[in-house]
Amino acid sequence: MSDVLEVARRARTAAAALAPLPRSTKDAALEAMADALVARSAEILEANALDVEAGREAGTAESLLDRLALTPARVEAMADGLRHVAGLPDPVGEVVRGSALPNGLEVRQVRVPLGVVGIIYEARPNVTADAAGLCLKSGNAVLLRGSASAYRSNTAIVAVLAEAATAAGLPPDCVALVPGTDRASVKELMSARGLVDVLIPRGGAGLIETVVKESQVPVIETGVGNCTVYVDAHADLEKAVAIVVDAKCSRPSVCNAAETLLVHADVAEEFLPKAREALAGVTLHVDERAGRIVDGVPATDEDWAAEYLSLDLAVGVVDTLDDALTHIRRWSSGHTEAIVTRNLAASRAFTKGVDSAAVMVNASTRFTDGGEFGFGAEIGISTQKLHARGPMGLPELTSTTWLVTGDGHVRG
Amino acid sequence: MSDVLEVARRARTAAAALAPLPRSTKDAALEAMADALVARSAEILEANALDVEAGREAGTAESLLDRLALTPARVEAMADGLRHVAGLPDPVGEVVRGSALPNGLEVRQVRVPLGVVGIIYEARPNVTADAAGLCLKSGNAVLLRGSASAYRSNTAIVAVLAEAATAAGLPPDCVALVPGTDRASVKELMSARGLVDVLIPRGGAGLIETVVKESQVPVIETGVGNCTVYVDAHADLEKAVAIVVDAKCSRPSVCNAAETLLVHADVAEEFLPKAREALAGVTLHVDERAGRIVDGVPATDEDWAAEYLSLDLAVGVVDTLDDALTHIRRWSSGHTEAIVTRNLAASRAFTKGVDSAAVMVNASTRFTDGGEFGFGAEIGISTQKLHARGPMGLPELTSTTWLVTGDGHVRG
Repeated sequence: MSDVLEVARRARTAAAALAPLPRSTKDAALEAMADALVARSAEILEANALDVEAGREAGTAESLLDRLALTPARVEAMADGLRHVAGLPDPVGEVVRGSALPNGLEVRQVRVPLGVVGIIYEARPNVTADAAGLCLKSGNAVLLRGSASAYRSNTAIVAVLAEAATAAGLPPDCVALVPGTDRASVKELMSARGLVDVLIPRGGAGLIETVVKESQVPVIETGVGNCTVYVDAHADLEKAVAIVVDAKCSRPSVCNAAETLLVHADVAEEFLPKAREALAGVTLHVDERAGRIVDGVPATDEDWAAEYLSLDLAVGVVDTLDDALTHIRRWSSGHTEAIVTRNLAASRAFTKGVDSAAVMVNASTRFTDGGEFGFGAEIGISTQKLHARGPMGLPELTSTTWLVTGDGHVRG
Repeated sequence: MSDVLEVARRARTAAAALAPLPRSTKDAALEAMADALVARSAEILEANALDVEAGREAGTAESLLDRLALTPARVEAMADGLRHVAGLPDPVGEVVRGSALPNGLEVRQVRVPLGVVGIIYEARPNVTADAAGLCLKSGNAVLLRGSASAYRSNTAIVAVLAEAATAAGLPPDCVALVPGTDRASVKELMSARGLVDVLIPRGGAGLIETVVKESQVPVIETGVGNCTVYVDAHADLEKAVAIVVDAKCSRPSVCNAAETLLVHADVAEEFLPKAREALAGVTLHVDERAGRIVDGVPATDEDWAAEYLSLDLAVGVVDTLDDALTHIRRWSSGHTEAIVTRNLAASRAFTKGVDSAAVMVNASTRFTDGGEFGFGAEIGISTQKLHARGPMGLPELTSTTWLVTGDGHVRG
């Protein structure tokens, strides 16, 4: 058995021991893990410095090095994250529904851990502690597969977390780093059906696409966001400008930022110049009709498909709400679409016609977020339809089981 | 584009038109489909007779031919099934949870159709109508891929259903048979990621395993049941006998039938002879300790792993409840396990220690069933942990979306 499969096998054993543990034990372990991160931050920072040095020597961009680099403050923030998760309700044991059947059987559908969760992620080492905390809190063993560039950092962090977790009463091997930094180790993880219950890729579109296509382990797709704001004929244009600016500019690098703006022809001449002025520093990629009203680069199909993650925005003019829906159905990644309108029928038609994880009416696309929704924490934003859709908190890291209690009941 | 992908592409278009339709339209269509099945039963029976004849010529076993054969009564039963589904509540539009956020945004998580559901199934042509009814009621377009041996029957049934559905106001192509009877057509269906939202294989373990391994479309695993009854040291032995007999004999060919019996050593000498007597006609495959108490064929690892679906039962004696859990963790297919006990601590330990879709306490494994649970209808029993686990009714054929309503809200 390969190293990766051996680690997965051990995680499976750990998962069986972890599942029945009460909240108090898990919370105490998360607190101990937080304390250990701070107490042993010197060795974590030392390992991280080697990763950063290697990255710099390899010519990695400064922006990426900044994402990779840890500081005492960033380690503190990781510890605070774990303490925060300890304070959240435990989803395990929640009774989702239940009833007494006509024959007297008592039936309850109860949340249970998924088992072994594999997280495949890029760059930032703080994901290591975040993901471990959320998985353990929800009773799951966790296999972490970070990027090669953060391998030393992740090794140090996982060593600290695993030691503290076990000392606090969690089973050995409930947190583990997937050994190896090459593609082969990811492949093996994706083949570990029966040992790993779900893989969650967190990162760029390329990574997610690869995992979705190649994995035999069930996958939850996260995070690719080609989000659209549609400004309706009946929009309050001032609010529309504020929403578009917020959706595009408040944090352009995240998945819930807007990438496309569609404007109804009736208001395009009035709205687009206002939007152009407010979107300072944003490059507009305009279709022909929008280009007649405001300056911009001509838009191609690549623009409609793009998740820019930068200060770029594709802009089109449509004749009807239906045309906007047709555009969205063709180009959206199914993350979040927004309509700005004062008209109730338009709002209703838009929310019924869009097939995305979230639909905003008179609100910025940026609100699709576990924190904003009040989940307390988020493992990612699912853009698939099975299991979980939209922001995923702790309950989304669970499955359910049916508990049925009788007194000698038979069907006969 | 291949024929299969073309059918899938059309189903995708149909799904967008189907999703917003109200319950009344869908129910009227189901009633019309039921009427059409009865009105046009002659052509369905004619096509079916050709399938049965071809099967007989090919040397198909009589038991399989009986599953394949339709009669006027069986066509009536298919129609009644559709009428029954029309009477069930529509899951689409159900608000799963919702709240007003501190900033005044109103958030609702609402059930929506999955989109395009593919069903891959074997033998019985009644599944064609059942699956179509459940998928359409939950707002999904449906692609049906039955077995080659029922291709003429399924073609006739789908033609009748599709014509009636469209005449009643459902979009064209919302019900379609996957063209072709060879493996290639299944392969293409499994590759139709982005067109098909989920595949549900219904049939033998081999079919399910193939689909799970090879599909790029997300899959819901159904139905393989290696179910265990554990008779605890504190069991009421009379009730235990009744439960084991019901679990094994009331319908041996179904997935919720028991395949393994584990007995605590403290009661094995008293219980096993009683059970042996009550299990008339059942072949016991016994481990060494059970074999010292009752007659049987020596059990091998193949017996512990077997889903017999016949009057065979693997029987073992265990020293502790923990040993029973270890056995179940190793051999169970994760469908249903049962404990018979009067002891509350044993019941608690068993339900916490078993990782299956359903756990029965003092009840037969046969109760894991959508009908018994009061779902009204069932598309299958999921043995996987993502999305749905256990009996799947109409809500399990939906996803959710987040609808967020504001008044110009921005995150800033």
